[in-house]
Amino acid sequence: MTEGGFEREPVALDARITSDGSTAWPVEAGRYRLVVARACPWAHRSVIVRRLLGLDPAISMGIAGPLHDERSWRFHLDPDCKDPVLGIEYLGEAYRAADPDFDAGVTVPAMVEVSSGKVATNGFQQLTLDFSTQWTAHHRPGAPDLYPQAHRDEIDEVIASFYEDVNNGVYKCGFASTQEAYEKAYGELFGRLDALSERLADRRYLVGDTITEADIRLWVTLVRFDAAYHGHFKCNRQKLAEMPVLWAYARDLFQTPGFGDTTDFVQIKQHYYGVHHTINPSGVVPLGPDVRPWLDPHGREALGGRPFGDGTPPGEPVEGERVPSIS
Amino acid sequence: MTEGGFEREPVALDARITSDGSTAWPVEAGRYRLVVARACPWAHRSVIVRRLLGLDPAISMGIAGPLHDERSWRFHLDPDCKDPVLGIEYLGEAYRAADPDFDAGVTVPAMVEVSSGKVATNGFQQLTLDFSTQWTAHHRPGAPDLYPQAHRDEIDEVIASFYEDVNNGVYKCGFASTQEAYEKAYGELFGRLDALSERLADRRYLVGDTITEADIRLWVTLVRFDAAYHGHFKCNRQKLAEMPVLWAYARDLFQTPGFGDTTDFVQIKQHYYGVHHTINPSGVVPLGPDVRPWLDPHGREALGGRPFGDGTPPGEPVEGERVPSIS
Repeated sequence: MTEGGFEREPVALDARITSDGSTAWPVEAGRYRLVVARACPWAHRSVIVRRLLGLDPAISMGIAGPLHDERSWRFHLDPDCKDPVLGIEYLGEAYRAADPDFDAGVTVPAMVEVSSGKVATNGFQQLTLDFSTQWTAHHRPGAPDLYPQAHRDEIDEVIASFYEDVNNGVYKCGFASTQEAYEKAYGELFGRLDALSERLADRRYLVGDTITEADIRLWVTLVRFDAAYHGHFKCNRQKLAEMPVLWAYARDLFQTPGFGDTTDFVQIKQHYYGVHHTINPSGVVPLGPDVRPWLDPHGREALGGRPFGDGTPPGEPVEGERVPSIS
Repeated sequence: MTEGGFEREPVALDARITSDGSTAWPVEAGRYRLVVARACPWAHRSVIVRRLLGLDPAISMGIAGPLHDERSWRFHLDPDCKDPVLGIEYLGEAYRAADPDFDAGVTVPAMVEVSSGKVATNGFQQLTLDFSTQWTAHHRPGAPDLYPQAHRDEIDEVIASFYEDVNNGVYKCGFASTQEAYEKAYGELFGRLDALSERLADRRYLVGDTITEADIRLWVTLVRFDAAYHGHFKCNRQKLAEMPVLWAYARDLFQTPGFGDTTDFVQIKQHYYGVHHTINPSGVVPLGPDVRPWLDPHGREALGGRPFGDGTPPGEPVEGERVPSIS
């Protein structure tokens, strides 16, 4: 690792919730609460997949606020600053319920067993794949196949290709404490984005002709790019809005149910600029960029593609899970 | 003043150098050395005006480096870290030569009397106007009139209209220590930029049909906008490159002798990101943005205008005063 480079802490409670009884945590409607934060890209994946698959009646959702103190994610948007179902103020309480000696990172997304208040898993890499493959009995009618059997190898490969350079790469740029580590991460980030631009120039989605897990994983980073990573993390060769293919691709998804309607730019900025005191000591949150261009026509329909394949778009977000509209 | 707002320190040695004997400092070729830093917009004004008027044989130029410690501007780019003419390492030495009790801000531009090593003036607001009006005997043949008598009222008015909101406004955004102070400065900055965009939509230059002092004062802020102010100072409603009129106007001047050929983007970024530890504790300097688009066609010739009026462009920069080319 380059000196001064950023290394992501491994997840600590990465059990799986499965449908075949092979793990301690069985799939069961109403048993778990998905705890997320609107700001967090890793959590955003799970918010999108849950909504596209219609898992909301089976898995309720708790929303930690964008700001946290040294004790990490906190339910400061809820009445009395407590999650109304779990009754806790800090998500760390659910981690320590699972493991009293827990002292690793308190991260979102986390699946918390409601009855015991224990975190079942914070394994963000597997979570959404399991939503697609283990929770099928609870998918809505018309749920799309986000991890189609025929394309899994390609999806896995594409996802792996940009995880370090893009999803994690923006953090490596922002948290680099040496010029050398920053420059390495910046080169890898923009090199990969250039390759992705090329891939997406003549195909609407990353794999096959429908939205898959691969698109969701790339998109959660892209949608935060200009609001947070460009300035705060110094990922500033261009804005996303200056990379025509990726910008149109990102707008296309933004305007697709499940994407823009789960994105809260205000909370995203409050989080990054408000929490990383080592990068932004004043805590002042920028007013820009103007987010209305996310609604501009994208022209990507001309590339064909069937967003939800043989499925259908999800309905309106449920009450209590709506984000502020940007229009 | 809004709580948490930034206030610029008044200049401390703002005598004038005049041609009529009305002040202690007479115009005289070879008597003064103009000390600047490539990074500093206030100094950049004087670099441009000196070059456009051909004052370089009459007024030599010392170039402080982009980085400074708590003792402020320093000649760290020169051999032995000393200005070769003044023989000093820190510009503060020339301030204290003028006033042993000097304890205000050590700023560039500063005109230093070579024989005594004393700062004659650091009055940046008057300096370039005096280059135009007091140093006429030393102007080159073909020097443009940057402060034409017929337009002085309008130039003064335009200059005053954007000084607080734009030239100083970017600093107010960046150094705001409260959200309220930042938001006020941001609103004023972009409100003024919108008004300037409107003014420049159908006229090539700010006043009359030639380049004047007004253009120079606006431009030194615009050329730093995307490299420093957009990210580092949170002036991020748009990049300059996303404001079509101002961006074309700024490119037009960049491609005019005296402007782009006195601009050093590397030193600009090293300065802002390297010196303001309260804003950028890591000191990491961003690699972006891509500056090559500054050379893109701007199309502003179609608006008419005569850049140098009845004058001519300056020749090539003299040896030792060239900046790295961006192409």
